[in-house]
Amino acid sequence: MPARMLWHNARVATMSPQAADPWGLIESGAILTQGDTIEWVGAYDDRPRAARDANHVDLNGLLVTPGLIDCHTHLVYGGHRANEAEMRLNGASYEAIARAGGGIRSSVAATRAASEQELLAAAARRARALLREGVTTIEVKSGYGLSLDAEARCLRAARALGSTLPISVRTTYLGAHAVPPEFEGRPDDYITAVCEWMQTLHAQGLVDAVDAFCESIAFTSAQTRRVFETARALGLPVKLHAEQLSDQGGAMLAASFGAMSCDHLEYLGAAGVAAMRAAGTVAVLLPGAYYMLRETQQPPVALLREAGVPMAVATDHNPGTSPGLSLLLSAHMSCVFFRLTPLEALRGITVHAALALGLPDRGVLAPGMRADFVAWDVAALNELTYWFGHNPCRRVVVAGAELQE
Amino acid sequence: MPARMLWHNARVATMSPQAADPWGLIESGAILTQGDTIEWVGAYDDRPRAARDANHVDLNGLLVTPGLIDCHTHLVYGGHRANEAEMRLNGASYEAIARAGGGIRSSVAATRAASEQELLAAAARRARALLREGVTTIEVKSGYGLSLDAEARCLRAARALGSTLPISVRTTYLGAHAVPPEFEGRPDDYITAVCEWMQTLHAQGLVDAVDAFCESIAFTSAQTRRVFETARALGLPVKLHAEQLSDQGGAMLAASFGAMSCDHLEYLGAAGVAAMRAAGTVAVLLPGAYYMLRETQQPPVALLREAGVPMAVATDHNPGTSPGLSLLLSAHMSCVFFRLTPLEALRGITVHAALALGLPDRGVLAPGMRADFVAWDVAALNELTYWFGHNPCRRVVVAGAELQE
Repeated sequence: MPARMLWHNARVATMSPQAADPWGLIESGAILTQGDTIEWVGAYDDRPRAARDANHVDLNGLLVTPGLIDCHTHLVYGGHRANEAEMRLNGASYEAIARAGGGIRSSVAATRAASEQELLAAAARRARALLREGVTTIEVKSGYGLSLDAEARCLRAARALGSTLPISVRTTYLGAHAVPPEFEGRPDDYITAVCEWMQTLHAQGLVDAVDAFCESIAFTSAQTRRVFETARALGLPVKLHAEQLSDQGGAMLAASFGAMSCDHLEYLGAAGVAAMRAAGTVAVLLPGAYYMLRETQQPPVALLREAGVPMAVATDHNPGTSPGLSLLLSAHMSCVFFRLTPLEALRGITVHAALALGLPDRGVLAPGMRADFVAWDVAALNELTYWFGHNPCRRVVVAGAELQE
Repeated sequence: MPARMLWHNARVATMSPQAADPWGLIESGAILTQGDTIEWVGAYDDRPRAARDANHVDLNGLLVTPGLIDCHTHLVYGGHRANEAEMRLNGASYEAIARAGGGIRSSVAATRAASEQELLAAAARRARALLREGVTTIEVKSGYGLSLDAEARCLRAARALGSTLPISVRTTYLGAHAVPPEFEGRPDDYITAVCEWMQTLHAQGLVDAVDAFCESIAFTSAQTRRVFETARALGLPVKLHAEQLSDQGGAMLAASFGAMSCDHLEYLGAAGVAAMRAAGTVAVLLPGAYYMLRETQQPPVALLREAGVPMAVATDHNPGTSPGLSLLLSAHMSCVFFRLTPLEALRGITVHAALALGLPDRGVLAPGMRADFVAWDVAALNELTYWFGHNPCRRVVVAGAELQE
């Protein structure tokens, strides 16, 4: 029988939506785990008899939350685009940068040129930065390979990330991210290929979900529909990069396929909100890209709030529009840019992020849940989205085991 | 004779404006230090004879820059304002927050209630976060005490910070930050007090420079002039919070007093730029406050660049408008919001920040300079302002001694 542990002397924010306190805060709290699972959470004085024989671990009075969940990342890619960013700040035009091989195509070329080991090593460095901040679950998209081989390599690297590091990885196939050079001018043919590859990649067990980029500069709603139909036929859940730069009706389309989430959403309208609400689709807000692109159009947070659409927040880590590596900073930016409340922002990186990934076993601290939790060096929960640019994470427990630095 | 050390196997960015490479980058570089001072910097193969008997320290091929300098902080204060930030995001009006004791007055009350030890302990936590990111020199302003006793306590805490931690501290007296309750409606009387206190504080050796907040919501240009005249009579250099929310002509006034820096500057006009140029005043940009306040008016970077006014970048750490604790993130934000180039941003937190503090012995790596430097886990200098929200600092050397975690 796996060992029982009693994590005590903690102030535990369960984030349970059922709790009386909106954060589910339990002062003088404790968590009883058995193996990788939470057996009980509550006030220390109310601990069950089973706690008697457990190993006791003192959490030093720190504030504890569920392990953070980054539900939208493009963590696996070759190279980076710091030179391109520098060129742009030095006044180079987009044409000049494109001529110099810049833009998403440079990431595609670098990704194709990288081995699986190289992709894994680079992604692992980035994942470790997230882990150090208490992120215990991440979603990782493909989408910089854009060929069957390279997409497979990226998804294998993502899977390997989850077995190499103490972090849960959910893979998302994003073949429909951009049209690769060899399909230039033939997006419909490329979508045909994307759908064929999906079956192969799914058969190899590499795909947990399917995503597409539905946008004026990417794929149409009709092309996105073809991707989603293939996913549905394979029984794969879908999500969508929707309404980031314009309203393409992507959220409505995605909702009609029961999408787990629609992401970005700056240009989402009332009809899209209603469709997401009806479908139970999570709205994933990505303030890192909003920041980097100096956007001014904000996602319709008031409408989403009013409709009761759950809002999640993610880093959208990617080499072009969001090379950020702090989920807490994303949460901070969601408060500053989008006026989320601290409670909404913390829900957005815990319970609602779990919902966006279709993971019912995490995001809150409750019996039966995975024992992923984080101890923070702050006195109050609203401090997590008040200070910015530092890391108050002190201790991380993944699947019932405490990480050592 | 203090020990000689040869820090080798490093890629050294001296940031020297005299170097051929704009970053002063020396591949296969080395730094020879004696005690707290740099004796020589160059290519390892060109090392002087004196390097033979030095202790050798391998920097593992990391990229080395001067220690970072945060030239504008309000690091010493009591309490914090996370609750107020949360209230505001929950829709509370400014009046409601003021009624609940919010705003700068809440920080003044908390600061007055705190002992010097409490102020020091809280500031030390924040300073350690900066230090972990390679910040080896900080400026610390008073301005939350607003009485002789409380201002003195804050400045003593700032001084103590510099003797407690391996970080250089420059103190700035900012009595003219806001009108305290006991002078309500009598700002001129308060300025009289500020000027009197300045003499006492200066006599106690607590003041390295004098600052004021010249703004429609703070002090007039005439009141600022009185503060500056007192400073001049005492031989103290001045700087100014200028043109943050409106153009009050503050920069021109400050330049006429030979100010070391004018800070914020969103509303700075061409006449102000010209005056700063003529006076050799540094422009300190504070993107953290711009971010938190969701400002849209940017400082006139193109004008400053054209005029050759040196631009520095700082955190402006304070409990109200910028509770940020990452100077690298401030640099990143200066690129995103203000379109500084990566080179300008790095100069802004090294050589130009030293200039803003009137410290000729740091900010570049050259013979005779303080041996403050940082080794970074990035391959290229432009990566320091490309990735954001993580900390690539691996090793910190302060006054010739390497810090241990």
